[in-house]
Amino acid sequence: MNRFGTKFSITTFGESHGDAVGCVIDSVPAGLQIDESYIQSELDKRKPARTKFTTQRKESDEVRILSGVFNGISTGAPIALVIFNENQKSSDYENIKSLFRPSHADFTYFKKYGIRDYRGGGRSSARETAARVAAGAIAKKLLGEFNIRVKSGIFAIGGIEALEADFEYADKSEIFALDKSKEEAQKKAVLEAKEAGDSTGGCVFVKISNVPAGLGEPLYNKLDAALGAALMGINGVKAVEIGEGVNASKLKGSQNNDQMDENGFLTNHAGGILGGISTGADIDLKIHFKPTPSIFLEQQTQNEQGESVKFSLKGRHDPCIAVRGSVVANAVVSLVIADMLLLNASSTVKNLKKIYGK
Amino acid sequence: MNRFGTKFSITTFGESHGDAVGCVIDSVPAGLQIDESYIQSELDKRKPARTKFTTQRKESDEVRILSGVFNGISTGAPIALVIFNENQKSSDYENIKSLFRPSHADFTYFKKYGIRDYRGGGRSSARETAARVAAGAIAKKLLGEFNIRVKSGIFAIGGIEALEADFEYADKSEIFALDKSKEEAQKKAVLEAKEAGDSTGGCVFVKISNVPAGLGEPLYNKLDAALGAALMGINGVKAVEIGEGVNASKLKGSQNNDQMDENGFLTNHAGGILGGISTGADIDLKIHFKPTPSIFLEQQTQNEQGESVKFSLKGRHDPCIAVRGSVVANAVVSLVIADMLLLNASSTVKNLKKIYGK
Amino acid sequence: MNRFGTKFSITTFGESHGDAVGCVIDSVPAGLQIDESYIQSELDKRKPARTKFTTQRKESDEVRILSGVFNGISTGAPIALVIFNENQKSSDYENIKSLFRPSHADFTYFKKYGIRDYRGGGRSSARETAARVAAGAIAKKLLGEFNIRVKSGIFAIGGIEALEADFEYADKSEIFALDKSKEEAQKKAVLEAKEAGDSTGGCVFVKISNVPAGLGEPLYNKLDAALGAALMGINGVKAVEIGEGVNASKLKGSQNNDQMDENGFLTNHAGGILGGISTGADIDLKIHFKPTPSIFLEQQTQNEQGESVKFSLKGRHDPCIAVRGSVVANAVVSLVIADMLLLNASSTVKNLKKIYGK
Amino acid sequence: MNRFGTKFSITTFGESHGDAVGCVIDSVPAGLQIDESYIQSELDKRKPARTKFTTQRKESDEVRILSGVFNGISTGAPIALVIFNENQKSSDYENIKSLFRPSHADFTYFKKYGIRDYRGGGRSSARETAARVAAGAIAKKLLGEFNIRVKSGIFAIGGIEALEADFEYADKSEIFALDKSKEEAQKKAVLEAKEAGDSTGGCVFVKISNVPAGLGEPLYNKLDAALGAALMGINGVKAVEIGEGVNASKLKGSQNNDQMDENGFLTNHAGGILGGISTGADIDLKIHFKPTPSIFLEQQTQNEQGESVKFSLKGRHDPCIAVRGSVVANAVVSLVIADMLLLNASSTVKNLKKIYGK
Repeated sequence: MNRFGTKFSITTFGESHGDAVGCVIDSVPAGLQIDESYIQSELDKRKPARTKFTTQRKESDEVRILSGVFNGISTGAPIALVIFNENQKSSDYENIKSLFRPSHADFTYFKKYGIRDYRGGGRSSARETAARVAAGAIAKKLLGEFNIRVKSGIFAIGGIEALEADFEYADKSEIFALDKSKEEAQKKAVLEAKEAGDSTGGCVFVKISNVPAGLGEPLYNKLDAALGAALMGINGVKAVEIGEGVNASKLKGSQNNDQMDENGFLTNHAGGILGGISTGADIDLKIHFKPTPSIFLEQQTQNEQGESVKFSLKGRHDPCIAVRGSVVANAVVSLVIADMLLLNASSTVKNLKKIYGK
Repeated sequence: MNRFGTKFSITTFGESHGDAVGCVIDSVPAGLQIDESYIQSELDKRKPARTKFTTQRKESDEVRILSGVFNGISTGAPIALVIFNENQKSSDYENIKSLFRPSHADFTYFKKYGIRDYRGGGRSSARETAARVAAGAIAKKLLGEFNIRVKSGIFAIGGIEALEADFEYADKSEIFALDKSKEEAQKKAVLEAKEAGDSTGGCVFVKISNVPAGLGEPLYNKLDAALGAALMGINGVKAVEIGEGVNASKLKGSQNNDQMDENGFLTNHAGGILGGISTGADIDLKIHFKPTPSIFLEQQTQNEQGESVKFSLKGRHDPCIAVRGSVVANAVVSLVIADMLLLNASSTVKNLKKIYGK
Repeated sequence: MNRFGTKFSITTFGESHGDAVGCVIDSVPAGLQIDESYIQSELDKRKPARTKFTTQRKESDEVRILSGVFNGISTGAPIALVIFNENQKSSDYENIKSLFRPSHADFTYFKKYGIRDYRGGGRSSARETAARVAAGAIAKKLLGEFNIRVKSGIFAIGGIEALEADFEYADKSEIFALDKSKEEAQKKAVLEAKEAGDSTGGCVFVKISNVPAGLGEPLYNKLDAALGAALMGINGVKAVEIGEGVNASKLKGSQNNDQMDENGFLTNHAGGILGGISTGADIDLKIHFKPTPSIFLEQQTQNEQGESVKFSLKGRHDPCIAVRGSVVANAVVSLVIADMLLLNASSTVKNLKKIYGK
Repeated sequence: MNRFGTKFSITTFGESHGDAVGCVIDSVPAGLQIDESYIQSELDKRKPARTKFTTQRKESDEVRILSGVFNGISTGAPIALVIFNENQKSSDYENIKSLFRPSHADFTYFKKYGIRDYRGGGRSSARETAARVAAGAIAKKLLGEFNIRVKSGIFAIGGIEALEADFEYADKSEIFALDKSKEEAQKKAVLEAKEAGDSTGGCVFVKISNVPAGLGEPLYNKLDAALGAALMGINGVKAVEIGEGVNASKLKGSQNNDQMDENGFLTNHAGGILGGISTGADIDLKIHFKPTPSIFLEQQTQNEQGESVKFSLKGRHDPCIAVRGSVVANAVVSLVIADMLLLNASSTVKNLKKIYGK
């Protein structure tokens, strides 16, 4: 299944070293100004080789809108976006085509499908996330109509944590660092790993502001469940936290409860979601990325014949996938909120009467 | 949306203080022995008032199969399960019917629907999870046919963590404790919170063994994404970890990678999932529950008129929802694996030929 | 799959001779007055043994609401409806339990599932349509809020066709006849078939009025496609026509086109749907039911061992399923329109702004 | 919603006069040989301007596979197909850009979305069916692995009906005529309509052979319901018949029932489907297309301002959409059967054991 979302939904396609990656976005409401350059600017944030902190594989990642937009306005028809691949060096993968790179999806795709596209991980490559970012840009456009803002940045790298979250700063930082005072140490952790032929894990913080209260579809498309699926589905994510997250399991009710007064919530331990529905407060999410599995140190693995082999990887890889992951997390979260906005539109007879006017 | 799963799926219904809770399970393969007493035995693990560590609200929680089973065998027709409610004291909720209990879903349901069933939280009550446990029992029955085992227990309460995970011991423990050496301290944490009119958070560990390699539907119904949604969708869950989880974000690639030899994986940092597909190794999950929001200390909140009010809660509540949450997590995880087992059946032409025989 | 609809959707359960039939209705907008007696009155139209023109199997078909309604108002939670079975004579089926009744689903269920509930056809029985009618009543309640009316009746029996469609008369007719002048001949056709131990086919006409223009989700949940699926999915339906229907294939464009003037469409050959979207004109549907396969004449068939056998059926059966089929068609059509009403709510940014107010 | 199918599913995109039309096919089983030239050959059957009986708009309709195939074999990843548009004369539509062509979707798209792409009908154009035909080719490839054959042809044009169905002859006929003895009269009807600036309706017959018994997902994704939706969803279809179809409503049970002996069914009034599940006999479908709404005679209509106007259409149009509709019907039917093949794979525990081997 390559479809995500219920109403505002995307279907993506494409492999790392195939012809193209792309997506079809379904049920985009008609009447939205679709700004091609804006999609491109979102994609550019994710673009490889932008800084020395990401992979040096060069891709211009130019997006093209194939359908669904007429005279700059969405028509209600599906919007197809395509990004043609350019800089595929399949030769990088010749020496590993019959072995399973440790902690990659090579082994599991082979077990599932009996065949695998070994060039850059094929479909399992993080390259596919370009499609999510492009689609996310359109979702963000829609959210902008309602003043909903999705912000993200690097909270931690290799355990070096931010003490504050300055999203404006993050937008300008080469590694999207949320805390200027920790940025240098975090950058150093990335470069040290890179120079050692190794990689490092990292943590991304996402904040969504101005979400109307009432979004989320209980009981099995809850807002937190949908966000959990979207984020856990990003390549390399191993943990997702909402609000207090892991820490909530250590607290007492009297510490964790968000009391209210006439102005609303006095605290936001919940991270903006109660009972799977938005409260109107900020939605706070933390996403933990594992270190890039592609490292250059010699490793031991199995080949397709089941033999144990040693090998060293070649190619160009991100030393810390969390950095570009910050952009991806931002996009998928936007997709979820857009979907919930649409789904909630018919939650009451009162809402329907506003539309059908009786 | 009250449906969970793609093929092996459940649709649940019912409120805390309504007539009944229940579910319809769709696409259960025909030919499965359905053992009503087994469903009941799973439900009994979750049953309230079983020990002093859970709510004292008494419910016999007797399950009744309404359809889909003929002469003890599943027919392929949907299986409807119903549990009639018995011990509803709606009067407990008279004093709070117009106010929003802190960190409950009262506020968000009211915002979404403009109406709420204030009796015990109505649809947002954890009582609904009885339906998930009943459905999960049938999923476990199916998994049993393939030797897949789902085990769960309490890893931590109020920050007191197990040092080892003995699932057999957990099955006998009143609080499903995984580590006998920590059980007393964990129990004490629950009771202290209870006596103080407070509550405590906790962490559940789930392990799934003997999962065939190849389960999970990339790219947007990945095994980890589906598990993330299922677990984050349980009442009170604020964080989900897979394998190394949060810790993965602190490691280097050389530490986190799972190398292989001719016998398979040498480690299991991945927690049994790579690229969203099962590796065949154990799937390890940690789920963090917030403390029960229902506490008996005086709290401040808003009422439906938007005024600030103080109040004290009455009634019978779990001092630590993680305890019964362990049973629920076990059930929903079983539902996910059953669904993936069905979905994967058609992943290759080779599989289809085994069935259609050409 | 036992779920129908995308947003306003139903999941049904139950067998002819099991404990109960019922359904769970998902995403009913909150704030709808749910009138239990109204659901019952719709069910009563379909009730067996109401007249001599239907089966004499007696069922009181009493519906019970298990969830989703609080103080007479829908809460947004799923509405579970259950009808317990009463008058199951399983003994009627003892002599046919190992053979396949001609033109019944016995053979196909056995081939698909390797097991079948032979009592009255089990899941494949038209008894399940009671659940659709009950759910349809709630859909009609919602449609009523927007003045949308769904009317139905018998157009033809055994080839004897109505010349006009008087839906008010049909409501009072024992066989829901649309044309008083043809009613006697149609009744006679039913009774003659019945007396001969035979059965007869029939045709139902459904008209939906006051549908707002714009309903239907192109391109693969078009209004006509969804209606086609809903109607073709009713037991015994072999053809569905919209507007001119079959006749359209014989016409010229100049005859079939619906020209317009400033007041709207001058004709309605389209039957209220263009490009899969409602035009605002009446939606006209014809549904052709095969004759009841349960006849009392001696027939030849296969048994489960693959041998050829002769047998005679016992029991109580409708001589013309189209009669009660008229009620079922009315219900499923209502479900489709309700679903489309919800789905269309988010089709434009303008609509969303009416709801989220920015 | 632009997605069709449950597991083997397609999402299409593109407009008549946009950049491209295409689709993403999801859950194609891995290991299928994908023959690009075969997809092209199916597309060529539908290609405009192939004969004088179809529109003279010239499109080379070259298909390009963007993903999901590696070394000529499907990998399990989504297969994206794209056909770039070439011969768009938007100028043909300048004179009608603010008016609603009678019996086209112009009016309904405008009502639904508040905006419309007037160039050739935009998304509502039959041009989109090229994507269905391309996807259908891959479905047919899969069906071929199991010897399932889907055949189609013209049964009637303007009421001139075939007396026999020779599918081999149809493949060679310029109008896909099923009956050589009627072909000339049918051709003449097309050309006469064309010369008069008019158009004509027609009827397509589809036969599916060698379908395994047991396909179809009761109760709401029945094989007949799914086929009904697929066919009713083709542009211009106003009626769908299965087996006896309309005629079944005129028969007696003793005439319509398909009795059996030890060799199987003695007749096939059912058209290969009972209870929504395939019997193993041929599936017979008739599909009735309205006459092309694009005619060149002067017509009266409304413009976007609601005024009554007269106009004459320009451009190049099919005089009888049923002709190319025969190819489209063949394709969508193939998609349905492929989907059902996949869905049924997990219908029994026995099937699952064949795959998971325990």
